[in-house]
Amino acid sequence: MPYRLKLLVAYDGAPFSGWQSQPGGNTIQDHLEKAFARVAGEPVRLHGAGRTDAGVHALAQTAHADIPSRSLGAARWPAALNASLPPAIRVLRCRYVAQSFHARFSAKGKVYRYRVWNAAVLPPFEVSRAWHVTGHLDFEVISGAAQAFCGRHDFASFAANRGKPGENTVRTIQAVRIRRHGPLLTLEFSGDGFLYKMVRLMVGTLVRCGLGRMSPEEISARLHSGAQTGRAARFAAPADGLFLVRVRY
Amino acid sequence: MPYRLKLLVAYDGAPFSGWQSQPGGNTIQDHLEKAFARVAGEPVRLHGAGRTDAGVHALAQTAHADIPSRSLGAARWPAALNASLPPAIRVLRCRYVAQSFHARFSAKGKVYRYRVWNAAVLPPFEVSRAWHVTGHLDFEVISGAAQAFCGRHDFASFAANRGKPGENTVRTIQAVRIRRHGPLLTLEFSGDGFLYKMVRLMVGTLVRCGLGRMSPEEISARLHSGAQTGRAARFAAPADGLFLVRVRY
Repeated sequence: MPYRLKLLVAYDGAPFSGWQSQPGGNTIQDHLEKAFARVAGEPVRLHGAGRTDAGVHALAQTAHADIPSRSLGAARWPAALNASLPPAIRVLRCRYVAQSFHARFSAKGKVYRYRVWNAAVLPPFEVSRAWHVTGHLDFEVISGAAQAFCGRHDFASFAANRGKPGENTVRTIQAVRIRRHGPLLTLEFSGDGFLYKMVRLMVGTLVRCGLGRMSPEEISARLHSGAQTGRAARFAAPADGLFLVRVRY
Repeated sequence: MPYRLKLLVAYDGAPFSGWQSQPGGNTIQDHLEKAFARVAGEPVRLHGAGRTDAGVHALAQTAHADIPSRSLGAARWPAALNASLPPAIRVLRCRYVAQSFHARFSAKGKVYRYRVWNAAVLPPFEVSRAWHVTGHLDFEVISGAAQAFCGRHDFASFAANRGKPGENTVRTIQAVRIRRHGPLLTLEFSGDGFLYKMVRLMVGTLVRCGLGRMSPEEISARLHSGAQTGRAARFAAPADGLFLVRVRY
């Protein structure tokens, strides 16, 4: 019977084509599976807690893999894998877990952070790590409007294509925290799950509110109408500012 | 008579071959001069406060340029230049100054910051922005040892090649500030001037002390012996962690 290893992984999403393995390679999963194969001496399949799009970052993505032997102690796995990974992908911690653990199906929730840089000039060190918004953002309006997302709602109008066919689009957001530090605006979302592009659509909407181009009441209206929202224009924030902070189990 | 424009410039040094113009191009100066030529419609020569090596960053490098006309207001220059600069180089502010101002010769001092990441794993977001030191660093030893640099000394033994032939290698360091925030160690040096590679040689030496591989007394000995230091081994910290914070006038 194989042994199940749980991993915490951080990555700078900028140079990669997202998490999920694809024929062209250069995804986080591809790089990790290649590193695993080198250490384990045979192909290893990795299972992530969720897929992140091209350009999206992770402070602590979680994944698991079944490996043929337990000869390498958990504490020695990170260095063994990091030795053959690009520096923009780092395995932070490994732990042997029961076969009942599944990175995706055992997840109880996730925390995402989104960074907006609100000033005339985007500093070189923020390139690909924040959304550069030059228009004046009203922080109070954004903070107030964001609270509408808290609770259990049908988030269909905040999902790419309004959700996959037949998908249950009801999710619970436990907390939204908005902070400002100079020109940096940080929006953090804790939820039991997130639909495809949900965080970027929520942030895009909040920024529209902060720019005075949309009424905050519109958010509640869209949450109440769910999948029936019709063809109202929607605004997704770019991938650059999005960070998967952690996965809760 | 031309008009003199003073610039504050920030850059991520990683993708460039340093500040100073060179035949191969791709230096910060080359990119800025190209942007100036596009805006001014004729070649413009840029004068920086100092050269930074390949990989060294700047939060606010200072430079000046003489431009043929004052038709563009100072406040509009940054956006005009940034439009044709790579995102890793940003002009932060411009101001018209008297012809007597010279970015290099009018400088009264500089502030440099060096970042060391002291943990087993270097996070992806610190790649090329910190020196990764895995051995245990004794913070108290480094803090104590660093104070030896304060004051007026002959820094010949902390200069590349122990100074250029005939160069006066006496400099004054007004302040050294060492801070720690989790695994991040920040070393900040304020001085009236810095010799070539001086900050990197000081940091390399302090890290040797922090690792217990060199006695802090050795620093004072080297400062007292000046150019007579002989062939003692020296250790320069890598360019990645070095930031020019600002130039004082």
